[in-house]
Amino acid sequence: MSKFTIPTESSYIEAGGIRFAYRKFGQETGIPLVFFIHFRGTMENWDPNMIGVLAESRPIILFDNAGVGESSGETPTTVAEMAKDAATFIKALGLERVDILGFSIGGFVAQELVLQQPNMVRRIVLAGTGPQSGVNDPRKDVYEAMTQVGGDENDALENFLLLFYGPTETSRTAGISSYKRILSQKKVESSPQVLDAQLQAISQWTERDPEQKYDWLQKITQAVLVTNGVKDVMVPTENSYILTENLPNAQLIIYPDSGHGHLFQYPEQFAGHVKLFLDSK
Amino acid sequence: MSKFTIPTESSYIEAGGIRFAYRKFGQETGIPLVFFIHFRGTMENWDPNMIGVLAESRPIILFDNAGVGESSGETPTTVAEMAKDAATFIKALGLERVDILGFSIGGFVAQELVLQQPNMVRRIVLAGTGPQSGVNDPRKDVYEAMTQVGGDENDALENFLLLFYGPTETSRTAGISSYKRILSQKKVESSPQVLDAQLQAISQWTERDPEQKYDWLQKITQAVLVTNGVKDVMVPTENSYILTENLPNAQLIIYPDSGHGHLFQYPEQFAGHVKLFLDSK
Repeated sequence: MSKFTIPTESSYIEAGGIRFAYRKFGQETGIPLVFFIHFRGTMENWDPNMIGVLAESRPIILFDNAGVGESSGETPTTVAEMAKDAATFIKALGLERVDILGFSIGGFVAQELVLQQPNMVRRIVLAGTGPQSGVNDPRKDVYEAMTQVGGDENDALENFLLLFYGPTETSRTAGISSYKRILSQKKVESSPQVLDAQLQAISQWTERDPEQKYDWLQKITQAVLVTNGVKDVMVPTENSYILTENLPNAQLIIYPDSGHGHLFQYPEQFAGHVKLFLDSK
Repeated sequence: MSKFTIPTESSYIEAGGIRFAYRKFGQETGIPLVFFIHFRGTMENWDPNMIGVLAESRPIILFDNAGVGESSGETPTTVAEMAKDAATFIKALGLERVDILGFSIGGFVAQELVLQQPNMVRRIVLAGTGPQSGVNDPRKDVYEAMTQVGGDENDALENFLLLFYGPTETSRTAGISSYKRILSQKKVESSPQVLDAQLQAISQWTERDPEQKYDWLQKITQAVLVTNGVKDVMVPTENSYILTENLPNAQLIIYPDSGHGHLFQYPEQFAGHVKLFLDSK
Protein backbone atom coordinates (compact mmCIF):
# COMPACT_ATOMS: atom_id res chain seq x y z
CA MET A 1 0.00 0.00 0.00
CA SER A 2 1.24 3.46 -0.77
CA LYS A 3 1.65 5.76 2.20
CA PHE A 4 -1.76 6.97 3.37
CA THR A 5 -2.19 10.14 5.41
CA ILE A 6 -5.32 11.11 7.31
CA PRO A 7 -6.75 14.42 5.94
CA THR A 8 -5.52 17.22 8.21
CA GLU A 9 -8.47 19.63 7.91
CA SER A 10 -11.41 19.15 10.28
CA SER A 11 -15.05 19.84 9.49
CA TYR A 12 -17.43 21.07 12.19
CA ILE A 13 -21.07 20.53 13.04
CA GLU A 14 -23.13 22.04 15.86
CA ALA A 15 -25.54 19.84 17.82
CA GLY A 16 -26.80 19.72 21.40
CA GLY A 17 -24.78 22.80 22.26
CA ILE A 18 -21.50 21.19 21.17
CA ARG A 19 -19.40 22.12 18.14
CA PHE A 20 -18.16 18.67 17.06
CA ALA A 21 -14.93 18.45 15.02
CA TYR A 22 -14.68 15.54 12.58
CA ARG A 23 -12.99 14.28 9.44
CA LYS A 24 -14.93 12.34 6.84
CA PHE A 25 -13.06 10.69 3.97
CA GLY A 26 -12.62 7.39 2.14
CA GLN A 27 -15.32 6.04 -0.20
CA GLU A 28 -18.29 8.30 -0.91
CA THR A 29 -20.90 5.53 -0.71
CA GLY A 30 -21.53 2.64 1.68
CA ILE A 31 -22.19 2.42 5.38
CA PRO A 32 -19.82 4.78 7.21
CA LEU A 33 -17.46 3.38 9.82
CA VAL A 34 -17.32 5.72 12.85
CA PHE A 35 -14.27 5.46 15.14
CA PHE A 36 -14.20 5.89 18.96
CA ILE A 37 -10.69 6.58 20.22
CA HIS A 38 -8.88 5.50 23.41
CA PHE A 39 -8.33 7.30 26.74
CA ARG A 40 -6.93 10.83 26.31
CA GLY A 41 -6.80 10.37 22.55
CA THR A 42 -8.21 12.55 19.79
CA MET A 43 -9.14 11.74 16.20
CA GLU A 44 -5.45 12.28 15.37
CA ASN A 45 -4.48 9.22 17.45
CA TRP A 46 -5.48 6.61 14.85
CA ASP A 47 -2.66 4.86 13.02
CA PRO A 48 -2.91 6.02 9.39
CA ASN A 49 -1.69 2.63 8.11
CA MET A 50 -4.79 0.98 9.56
CA ILE A 51 -7.20 3.77 8.57
CA GLY A 52 -5.82 3.84 5.02
CA VAL A 53 -6.73 0.21 4.29
CA LEU A 54 -10.28 0.71 5.60
CA ALA A 55 -10.75 4.00 3.72
CA GLU A 56 -10.32 2.08 0.44
CA SER A 57 -13.63 0.27 0.94
CA ARG A 58 -15.97 2.57 2.92
CA PRO A 59 -16.64 6.09 4.24
CA ILE A 60 -14.55 6.79 7.34
CA ILE A 61 -15.60 9.19 10.11
CA LEU A 62 -13.15 10.23 12.83
CA PHE A 63 -14.41 12.68 15.42
CA ASP A 64 -13.64 14.31 18.74
CA ASN A 65 -16.40 13.73 21.28
CA ALA A 66 -17.61 16.55 23.57
CA GLY A 67 -14.72 18.36 25.25
CA VAL A 68 -12.06 16.31 23.43
CA GLY A 69 -9.41 17.72 21.05
CA GLU A 70 -10.92 20.22 18.63
CA SER A 71 -14.53 19.84 19.84
CA SER A 72 -16.12 22.33 22.22
CA GLY A 73 -17.90 21.55 25.49
CA GLU A 74 -16.93 19.49 28.50
CA THR A 75 -16.15 15.79 28.58
CA PRO A 76 -18.81 14.12 30.75
CA THR A 77 -17.83 11.83 33.64
CA THR A 78 -19.84 8.77 32.58
CA VAL A 79 -19.63 6.43 29.61
CA ALA A 80 -23.42 6.71 29.20
CA GLU A 81 -23.20 10.49 28.67
CA MET A 82 -20.30 10.07 26.23
CA ALA A 83 -22.46 7.67 24.22
CA LYS A 84 -25.32 10.17 24.30
CA ASP A 85 -23.02 12.87 22.89
CA ALA A 86 -21.79 10.47 20.19
CA ALA A 87 -25.39 9.71 19.17
CA THR A 88 -26.08 13.45 18.97
CA PHE A 89 -23.09 13.86 16.67
CA ILE A 90 -24.03 10.92 14.40
CA LYS A 91 -27.63 12.12 14.09
CA ALA A 92 -26.46 15.65 13.35
CA LEU A 93 -24.56 14.29 10.33
CA GLY A 94 -27.87 12.88 9.08
CA LEU A 95 -26.67 9.29 9.31
CA GLU A 96 -29.35 6.71 10.03
CA ARG A 97 -27.16 3.62 10.26
CA VAL A 98 -23.44 3.27 10.84
CA ASP A 99 -20.79 0.70 11.68
CA ILE A 100 -18.71 1.58 14.72
CA LEU A 101 -15.21 0.72 15.92
CA GLY A 102 -14.36 1.44 19.57
CA PHE A 103 -10.88 1.11 21.01
CA SER A 104 -10.36 0.89 24.81
CA ILE A 105 -12.64 3.48 26.48
CA GLY A 106 -13.96 4.01 22.94
CA GLY A 107 -15.15 0.40 23.14
CA PHE A 108 -17.01 1.15 26.37
CA VAL A 109 -18.74 4.07 24.61
CA ALA A 110 -19.49 1.90 21.57
CA GLN A 111 -21.23 -0.75 23.71
CA GLU A 112 -23.22 1.89 25.55
CA LEU A 113 -24.20 3.57 22.26
CA VAL A 114 -25.62 0.29 20.91
CA LEU A 115 -27.64 -0.24 24.09
CA GLN A 116 -29.01 3.32 23.88
CA GLN A 117 -29.54 3.38 20.09
CA PRO A 118 -29.91 -0.21 18.89
CA ASN A 119 -31.19 0.84 15.46
CA MET A 120 -28.38 3.28 14.74
CA VAL A 121 -25.66 0.63 14.60
CA ARG A 122 -25.29 -2.16 12.04
CA ARG A 123 -22.01 -3.85 13.12
CA ILE A 124 -19.52 -3.24 15.91
CA VAL A 125 -15.77 -3.70 16.32
CA LEU A 126 -14.57 -3.75 19.94
CA ALA A 127 -10.76 -3.50 20.13
CA GLY A 128 -8.76 -3.76 23.36
CA THR A 129 -11.80 -3.24 25.53
CA GLY A 130 -14.07 -5.00 28.01
CA PRO A 131 -17.60 -5.25 29.32
CA GLN A 132 -18.81 -3.11 32.21
CA SER A 133 -17.69 -4.76 35.45
CA GLY A 134 -14.99 -6.77 33.68
CA VAL A 135 -11.68 -8.17 34.92
CA ASN A 136 -9.08 -5.77 36.30
CA ASP A 137 -5.39 -6.32 36.88
CA PRO A 138 -4.38 -3.09 38.62
CA ARG A 139 -0.68 -2.39 38.16
CA LYS A 140 0.83 0.72 39.67
CA ASP A 141 3.26 1.31 36.78
CA VAL A 142 0.39 1.05 34.31
CA TYR A 143 -1.77 3.55 36.22
CA GLU A 144 1.14 5.99 36.50
CA ALA A 145 1.89 5.73 32.77
CA MET A 146 -1.79 6.27 31.95
CA THR A 147 -2.13 9.41 34.02
CA GLN A 148 1.26 11.07 33.57
CA VAL A 149 1.04 14.75 32.66
CA GLY A 150 4.09 16.56 31.31
CA GLY A 151 7.28 14.54 31.03
CA ASP A 152 9.57 14.69 28.03
CA GLU A 153 9.26 13.08 24.59
CA ASN A 154 11.01 9.95 25.74
CA ASP A 155 8.64 9.53 28.71
CA ALA A 156 5.70 9.79 26.32
CA LEU A 157 7.18 7.11 24.05
CA GLU A 158 8.03 4.79 26.94
CA ASN A 159 4.53 5.17 28.40
CA PHE A 160 3.03 4.38 25.01
CA LEU A 161 5.20 1.27 24.66
CA LEU A 162 4.39 0.06 28.19
CA LEU A 163 0.65 0.58 27.79
CA PHE A 164 0.15 -0.51 24.18
CA TYR A 165 2.91 -3.02 23.34
CA GLY A 166 4.54 -6.20 24.55
CA PRO A 167 7.97 -6.54 26.13
CA THR A 168 9.55 -8.15 23.03
CA GLU A 169 11.81 -6.39 20.56
CA THR A 170 9.38 -7.12 17.70
CA SER A 171 6.42 -5.60 19.53
CA ARG A 172 8.39 -2.53 20.72
CA THR A 173 9.81 -1.93 17.24
CA ALA A 174 6.31 -2.03 15.73
CA GLY A 175 5.17 0.30 18.52
CA ILE A 176 7.88 2.86 17.80
CA SER A 177 6.94 2.86 14.08
CA SER A 178 3.26 3.39 14.88
CA TYR A 179 4.09 6.09 17.44
CA LYS A 180 6.06 8.00 14.81
CA ARG A 181 3.24 7.75 12.29
CA ILE A 182 0.76 9.07 14.85
CA LEU A 183 3.09 11.77 16.20
CA SER A 184 3.70 13.13 12.70
CA GLN A 185 -0.05 13.89 12.29
CA LYS A 186 -0.76 15.11 15.84
CA LYS A 187 -1.50 18.82 16.32
CA VAL A 188 -3.97 18.97 19.21
CA GLU A 189 -3.69 17.42 22.70
CA SER A 190 -6.62 16.80 25.01
CA SER A 191 -7.02 19.03 28.07
CA PRO A 192 -6.61 18.01 31.72
CA GLN A 193 -10.41 18.14 32.00
CA VAL A 194 -10.63 15.22 29.56
CA LEU A 195 -8.19 13.20 31.64
CA ASP A 196 -10.10 13.79 34.88
CA ALA A 197 -13.54 13.15 33.40
CA GLN A 198 -12.47 10.03 31.49
CA LEU A 199 -10.73 8.62 34.58
CA GLN A 200 -13.97 8.99 36.53
CA ALA A 201 -15.91 7.31 33.75
CA ILE A 202 -13.40 4.44 33.53
CA SER A 203 -13.38 3.97 37.29
CA GLN A 204 -17.18 3.66 37.36
CA TRP A 205 -17.31 1.36 34.29
CA THR A 206 -14.61 -1.04 35.47
CA GLU A 207 -15.85 -1.46 39.07
CA ARG A 208 -15.95 -5.21 39.54
CA ASP A 209 -18.81 -7.34 40.70
CA PRO A 210 -17.42 -10.89 40.71
CA GLU A 211 -20.97 -12.31 40.61
CA GLN A 212 -21.58 -10.48 37.37
CA LYS A 213 -23.49 -12.46 34.71
CA TYR A 214 -23.24 -9.81 31.95
CA ASP A 215 -26.93 -10.29 31.11
CA TRP A 216 -27.22 -6.96 29.30
CA LEU A 217 -24.74 -8.11 26.65
CA GLN A 218 -27.52 -10.40 25.37
CA LYS A 219 -29.28 -7.23 24.19
CA ILE A 220 -26.50 -6.46 21.72
CA THR A 221 -27.77 -8.66 18.88
CA GLN A 222 -25.64 -7.05 16.19
CA ALA A 223 -22.63 -8.90 14.77
CA VAL A 224 -19.58 -7.89 16.83
CA LEU A 225 -15.88 -8.37 16.15
CA VAL A 226 -13.89 -8.45 19.41
CA THR A 227 -10.10 -8.04 19.14
CA ASN A 228 -7.09 -7.70 21.40
CA GLY A 229 -3.43 -8.58 21.77
CA VAL A 230 -2.63 -11.76 23.67
CA LYS A 231 -1.35 -9.75 26.68
CA ASP A 232 -3.07 -6.42 27.30
CA VAL A 233 -1.79 -4.83 30.53
CA MET A 234 -4.42 -2.07 30.59
CA VAL A 235 -7.65 -3.91 29.74
CA PRO A 236 -6.75 -7.56 30.45
CA THR A 237 -7.30 -9.85 27.44
CA GLU A 238 -9.66 -12.04 29.49
CA ASN A 239 -12.25 -9.28 29.00
CA SER A 240 -12.28 -10.11 25.29
CA TYR A 241 -13.12 -13.73 26.14
CA ILE A 242 -15.95 -12.54 28.41
CA LEU A 243 -17.37 -10.31 25.67
CA THR A 244 -17.20 -13.13 23.09
CA GLU A 245 -18.82 -15.69 25.37
CA ASN A 246 -21.66 -13.41 26.46
CA LEU A 247 -22.49 -11.44 23.33
CA PRO A 248 -24.92 -13.51 21.23
CA ASN A 249 -23.09 -12.90 17.94
CA ALA A 250 -19.41 -12.11 18.50
CA GLN A 251 -16.30 -13.19 16.64
CA LEU A 252 -12.99 -12.97 18.49
CA ILE A 253 -9.53 -12.33 17.07
CA ILE A 254 -6.46 -12.33 19.34
CA TYR A 255 -3.10 -11.26 17.92
CA PRO A 256 0.26 -12.75 18.95
CA ASP A 257 3.19 -10.95 20.62
CA SER A 258 1.10 -7.85 21.29
CA GLY A 259 -1.12 -6.02 23.72
CA HIS A 260 -3.59 -3.14 23.83
CA GLY A 261 -2.07 -1.64 20.65
CA HIS A 262 -2.56 -4.81 18.54
CA LEU A 263 -4.49 -2.86 15.92
CA PHE A 264 -1.54 -0.48 15.43
CA GLN A 265 1.04 -3.29 15.63
CA TYR A 266 -0.64 -5.19 12.77
CA PRO A 267 -2.40 -2.31 10.99
CA GLU A 268 -2.87 -3.94 7.57
CA GLN A 269 -3.79 -7.36 8.97
CA PHE A 270 -6.20 -5.88 11.51
CA ALA A 271 -7.83 -3.72 8.83
CA GLY A 272 -8.09 -6.82 6.62
CA HIS A 273 -9.92 -8.65 9.39
CA VAL A 274 -12.25 -5.70 9.99
CA LYS A 275 -13.02 -5.46 6.28
CA LEU A 276 -13.72 -9.22 6.06
CA PHE A 277 -16.01 -8.92 9.10
CA LEU A 278 -17.90 -5.82 7.93
CA ASP A 279 -18.32 -7.15 4.38
CA SER A 280 -19.37 -10.72 5.32
CA LYS A 281 -22.91 -11.83 4.59
CA MET B 1 -18.34 -18.80 -5.62
CA SER B 2 -19.48 -21.46 -8.04
CA LYS B 3 -20.02 -24.91 -6.58
CA PHE B 4 -16.69 -26.60 -5.94
CA THR B 5 -16.33 -30.37 -5.70
CA ILE B 6 -13.31 -32.18 -4.34
CA PRO B 7 -11.75 -34.42 -7.06
CA THR B 8 -13.06 -37.95 -6.54
CA GLU B 9 -10.06 -39.94 -7.79
CA SER B 10 -7.30 -40.73 -5.33
CA SER B 11 -3.59 -41.01 -6.11
CA TYR B 12 -1.38 -43.45 -4.23
CA ILE B 13 2.20 -43.46 -3.00
CA GLU B 14 4.11 -46.20 -1.16
CA ALA B 15 6.36 -45.28 1.76
CA GLY B 16 7.40 -46.94 5.01
CA GLY B 17 5.39 -50.02 4.13
CA ILE B 18 2.15 -48.01 3.75
CA ARG B 19 0.25 -47.30 0.54
CA PHE B 20 -0.98 -43.76 1.22
CA ALA B 21 -4.09 -42.51 -0.63
CA TYR B 22 -4.23 -38.77 -1.33
CA ARG B 23 -5.74 -36.12 -3.55
CA LYS B 24 -3.67 -33.17 -4.74
CA PHE B 25 -5.39 -30.31 -6.54
CA GLY B 26 -5.76 -26.52 -6.55
CA GLN B 27 -2.95 -24.22 -7.74
CA GLU B 28 0.11 -25.89 -9.29
CA THR B 29 2.65 -23.62 -7.58
CA GLY B 30 3.07 -22.29 -4.08
CA ILE B 31 3.48 -23.93 -0.69
CA PRO B 32 1.05 -26.86 -0.41
CA LEU B 33 -1.49 -26.89 2.41
CA VAL B 34 -1.79 -30.40 3.87
CA PHE B 35 -4.97 -31.25 5.80
CA PHE B 36 -5.27 -33.50 8.89
CA ILE B 37 -8.83 -34.66 9.45
CA HIS B 38 -10.87 -35.25 12.63
CA PHE B 39 -11.59 -38.46 14.62
CA ARG B 40 -12.89 -41.30 12.41
CA GLY B 41 -12.81 -39.04 9.36
CA THR B 42 -11.19 -39.60 5.98
CA MET B 43 -10.03 -37.15 3.32
CA GLU B 44 -13.65 -37.16 2.11
CA ASN B 45 -14.82 -35.50 5.36
CA TRP B 46 -13.70 -31.97 4.45
CA ASP B 47 -16.42 -29.50 3.54
CA PRO B 48 -15.93 -28.72 -0.18
CA ASN B 49 -17.13 -25.12 0.29
CA MET B 50 -14.15 -24.46 2.56
CA ILE B 51 -11.65 -26.44 0.49
CA GLY B 52 -12.79 -24.74 -2.73
CA VAL B 53 -11.90 -21.24 -1.52
CA LEU B 54 -8.44 -22.37 -0.41
CA ALA B 55 -7.80 -24.32 -3.63
CA GLU B 56 -8.05 -21.04 -5.56
CA SER B 57 -4.82 -19.76 -4.03
CA ARG B 58 -2.56 -22.79 -3.32
CA PRO B 59 -1.91 -26.49 -3.84
CA ILE B 60 -4.18 -28.59 -1.61
CA ILE B 61 -3.26 -32.05 -0.32
CA LEU B 62 -5.86 -34.23 1.38
CA PHE B 63 -4.73 -37.69 2.52
CA ASP B 64 -5.68 -40.72 4.55
CA ASN B 65 -3.09 -41.50 7.21
CA ALA B 66 -1.97 -45.10 7.89
CA GLY B 67 -4.93 -47.45 8.26
CA VAL B 68 -7.50 -44.74 7.54
CA GLY B 69 -9.98 -44.75 4.63
CA GLU B 70 -8.28 -45.76 1.39
CA SER B 71 -4.76 -46.08 2.83
CA SER B 72 -3.28 -49.45 3.80
CA GLY B 73 -1.71 -50.40 7.12
CA GLU B 74 -2.93 -50.08 10.70
CA THR B 75 -3.76 -46.88 12.53
CA PRO B 76 -1.28 -46.52 15.42
CA THR B 77 -2.45 -45.94 18.97
CA THR B 78 -0.43 -42.80 19.69
CA VAL B 79 -0.49 -39.27 18.26
CA ALA B 80 3.31 -39.39 17.98
CA GLU B 81 3.19 -42.41 15.66
CA MET B 82 0.44 -40.81 13.57
CA ALA B 83 2.69 -37.77 13.12
CA LYS B 84 5.59 -40.03 12.13
CA ASP B 85 3.42 -41.64 9.45
CA ALA B 86 2.31 -38.22 8.21
CA ALA B 87 5.95 -37.10 7.91
CA THR B 88 6.73 -40.29 5.94
CA PHE B 89 3.88 -39.45 3.54
CA ILE B 90 4.91 -35.81 3.08
CA LYS B 91 8.55 -36.73 2.46
CA ALA B 92 7.49 -39.45 0.00
CA LEU B 93 5.76 -36.74 -2.06
CA GLY B 94 9.13 -34.96 -2.25
CA LEU B 95 7.84 -31.91 -0.37
CA GLU B 96 10.41 -30.05 1.69
CA ARG B 97 8.18 -27.45 3.26
CA VAL B 98 4.41 -27.38 3.71
CA ASP B 99 1.67 -25.51 5.54
CA ILE B 100 -0.58 -27.75 7.62
CA LEU B 101 -4.16 -27.52 8.87
CA GLY B 102 -5.22 -29.92 11.62
CA PHE B 103 -8.79 -30.29 12.84
CA SER B 104 -9.54 -31.95 16.20
CA ILE B 105 -7.32 -35.07 16.53
CA GLY B 106 -5.79 -33.81 13.28
CA GLY B 107 -4.65 -30.78 15.29
CA PHE B 108 -3.00 -33.05 17.86
CA VAL B 109 -1.12 -34.76 15.00
CA ALA B 110 -0.21 -31.39 13.47
CA GLN B 111 1.35 -30.17 16.75
CA GLU B 112 3.27 -33.39 17.17
CA LEU B 113 4.48 -33.25 13.56
CA VAL B 114 5.92 -29.77 14.07
CA LEU B 115 7.73 -30.89 17.22
CA GLN B 116 9.17 -33.91 15.38
CA GLN B 117 9.94 -32.12 12.08
CA PRO B 118 10.30 -28.41 12.83
CA ASN B 119 11.82 -27.66 9.41
CA MET B 120 9.11 -29.39 7.40
CA VAL B 121 6.34 -26.96 8.42
CA ARG B 122 6.08 -23.27 7.53
CA ARG B 123 2.72 -22.27 9.09
CA ILE B 124 0.07 -24.14 11.08
CA VAL B 125 -3.70 -23.87 11.43
CA LEU B 126 -5.13 -25.59 14.52
CA ALA B 127 -8.94 -25.84 14.32
CA GLY B 128 -11.13 -27.16 17.13
CA THR B 129 -8.22 -28.71 18.95
CA GLY B 130 -6.15 -28.45 22.12
CA PRO B 131 -2.71 -28.94 23.59
CA GLN B 132 -1.64 -32.23 25.12
CA SER B 133 -3.01 -32.37 28.68
CA GLY B 134 -5.62 -29.71 27.95
CA VAL B 135 -9.01 -29.04 29.51
CA ASN B 136 -11.67 -31.77 29.37
CA ASP B 137 -15.39 -31.51 29.92
CA PRO B 138 -16.46 -35.14 29.80
CA ARG B 139 -20.11 -35.50 28.81
CA LYS B 140 -21.66 -38.93 28.53
CA ASP B 141 -23.89 -37.98 25.57
CA VAL B 142 -20.88 -36.58 23.71
CA TYR B 143 -18.80 -39.73 24.27
CA GLU B 144 -21.67 -41.94 23.15
CA ALA B 145 -22.20 -39.90 20.00
CA MET B 146 -18.45 -40.01 19.26
CA THR B 147 -18.20 -43.76 19.54
CA GLN B 148 -21.53 -44.94 18.10
CA VAL B 149 -21.19 -47.70 15.50
CA GLY B 150 -24.10 -48.59 13.27
CA GLY B 151 -27.32 -46.64 13.82
CA ASP B 152 -29.42 -45.24 10.99
CA GLU B 153 -28.94 -42.15 8.82
CA ASN B 154 -30.80 -39.96 11.25
CA ASP B 155 -28.62 -41.09 14.17
CA ALA B 156 -25.54 -40.19 12.16
CA LEU B 157 -26.90 -36.72 11.41
CA GLU B 158 -27.99 -36.11 15.01
CA ASN B 159 -24.57 -37.20 16.31
CA PHE B 160 -22.86 -34.87 13.84
CA LEU B 161 -25.07 -31.96 14.93
CA LEU B 162 -24.50 -32.65 18.64
CA LEU B 163 -20.72 -32.98 18.27
CA PHE B 164 -20.02 -30.24 15.69
CA TYR B 165 -22.76 -27.61 16.02
CA GLY B 166 -24.53 -25.39 18.53
CA PRO B 167 -28.06 -25.84 19.84
CA THR B 168 -29.46 -22.89 17.86
CA GLU B 169 -31.54 -23.17 14.72
CA THR B 170 -28.95 -21.18 12.74
CA SER B 171 -26.09 -23.44 13.76
CA ARG B 172 -28.05 -26.66 13.17
CA THR B 173 -29.25 -25.45 9.75
CA ALA B 174 -25.68 -24.69 8.70
CA GLY B 175 -24.67 -28.10 10.06
CA ILE B 176 -27.27 -29.93 8.01
CA SER B 177 -26.12 -28.12 4.85
CA SER B 178 -22.50 -29.03 5.49
CA TYR B 179 -23.42 -32.62 6.35
CA LYS B 180 -25.21 -32.98 3.00
CA ARG B 181 -22.23 -31.56 1.11
CA ILE B 182 -19.90 -34.03 2.84
CA LEU B 183 -22.25 -37.00 2.54
CA SER B 184 -22.61 -36.46 -1.20
CA GLN B 185 -18.84 -36.97 -1.71
CA LYS B 186 -18.35 -39.78 0.83
CA LYS B 187 -17.56 -43.26 -0.53
CA VAL B 188 -15.27 -44.84 2.08
CA GLU B 189 -15.80 -45.20 5.84
CA SER B 190 -13.02 -45.85 8.34
CA SER B 191 -12.78 -49.30 9.93
CA PRO B 192 -13.44 -50.22 13.59
CA GLN B 193 -9.64 -50.50 14.01
CA VAL B 194 -9.34 -46.77 13.31
CA LEU B 195 -11.94 -45.98 15.97
CA ASP B 196 -10.22 -48.12 18.62
CA ALA B 197 -6.71 -46.90 17.86
CA GLN B 198 -7.70 -43.22 17.67
CA LEU B 199 -9.66 -43.49 20.93
CA GLN B 200 -6.54 -44.83 22.66
CA ALA B 201 -4.46 -42.01 21.18
CA ILE B 202 -6.99 -39.38 22.24
CA SER B 203 -7.26 -40.80 25.73
CA GLN B 204 -3.49 -40.64 26.19
CA TRP B 205 -3.20 -37.15 24.66
CA THR B 206 -6.01 -35.58 26.68
CA GLU B 207 -5.01 -36.99 30.08
CA ARG B 208 -5.01 -33.98 32.33
CA ASP B 209 -2.24 -32.74 34.57
CA PRO B 210 -3.71 -29.64 36.27
CA GLU B 211 -0.19 -28.41 37.08
CA GLN B 212 0.65 -28.42 33.39
CA LYS B 213 2.68 -25.41 32.19
CA TYR B 214 2.66 -26.35 28.47
CA ASP B 215 6.39 -25.58 28.19
CA TRP B 216 6.84 -27.60 25.00
CA LEU B 217 4.52 -25.25 23.12
CA GLN B 218 7.34 -22.68 23.29
CA LYS B 219 9.25 -24.86 20.82
CA ILE B 220 6.61 -24.29 18.14
CA THR B 221 8.02 -21.01 16.84
CA GLN B 222 6.09 -21.05 13.57
CA ALA B 223 3.15 -18.71 13.06
CA VAL B 224 0.01 -20.53 14.17
CA LEU B 225 -3.65 -19.73 13.58
CA VAL B 226 -5.85 -21.22 16.33
CA THR B 227 -9.60 -21.38 15.65
CA ASN B 228 -12.75 -22.73 17.25
CA GLY B 229 -16.42 -22.09 17.77
CA VAL B 230 -17.41 -20.24 20.96
CA LYS B 231 -18.84 -23.45 22.50
CA ASP B 232 -17.10 -26.69 21.50
CA VAL B 233 -18.55 -29.64 23.46
CA MET B 234 -15.87 -32.11 22.31
CA VAL B 235 -12.64 -30.14 22.67
CA PRO B 236 -13.65 -27.30 25.02
CA THR B 237 -12.94 -23.85 23.58
CA GLU B 238 -10.76 -22.99 26.58
CA ASN B 239 -8.09 -25.19 24.97
CA SER B 240 -7.85 -22.64 22.15
CA TYR B 241 -7.12 -19.92 24.72
CA ILE B 242 -4.42 -22.12 26.28
CA LEU B 243 -2.80 -22.73 22.89
CA THR B 244 -2.85 -19.02 22.04
CA GLU B 245 -1.43 -17.92 25.37
CA ASN B 246 1.38 -20.50 25.37
CA LEU B 247 2.44 -20.68 21.73
CA PRO B 248 4.96 -17.89 21.08
CA ASN B 249 3.34 -16.77 17.80
CA ALA B 250 -0.34 -17.68 17.67
CA GLN B 251 -3.34 -15.77 16.39
CA LEU B 252 -6.76 -16.82 17.69
CA ILE B 253 -10.11 -16.63 15.92
CA ILE B 254 -13.31 -17.69 17.70
CA TYR B 255 -16.57 -17.86 15.73
CA PRO B 256 -20.02 -17.02 17.15
CA ASP B 257 -23.01 -19.36 17.55
CA SER B 258 -20.92 -22.42 16.72
CA GLY B 259 -18.80 -25.25 18.08
CA HIS B 260 -16.31 -27.86 16.90
CA GLY B 261 -17.61 -27.58 13.33
CA HIS B 262 -17.04 -23.80 13.08
CA LEU B 263 -14.91 -24.23 9.93
CA PHE B 264 -17.79 -26.00 8.16
CA GLN B 265 -20.42 -23.63 9.56
CA TYR B 266 -18.60 -20.59 8.12
CA PRO B 267 -16.69 -22.27 5.26
CA GLU B 268 -16.03 -19.16 3.14
CA GLN B 269 -15.27 -16.89 6.09
CA PHE B 270 -12.99 -19.47 7.72
CA ALA B 271 -11.17 -20.05 4.42
CA GLY B 272 -10.81 -16.27 4.05
CA HIS B 273 -9.19 -16.06 7.48
CA VAL B 274 -6.86 -18.98 6.69
CA LYS B 275 -5.86 -17.37 3.39
CA LEU B 276 -5.20 -14.00 5.10
CA PHE B 277 -3.10 -15.79 7.73
CA LEU B 278 -1.09 -17.95 5.32
CA ASP B 279 -0.47 -15.06 2.91
CA SER B 280 0.43 -12.43 5.53
CA LYS B 281 3.99 -11.16 5.69
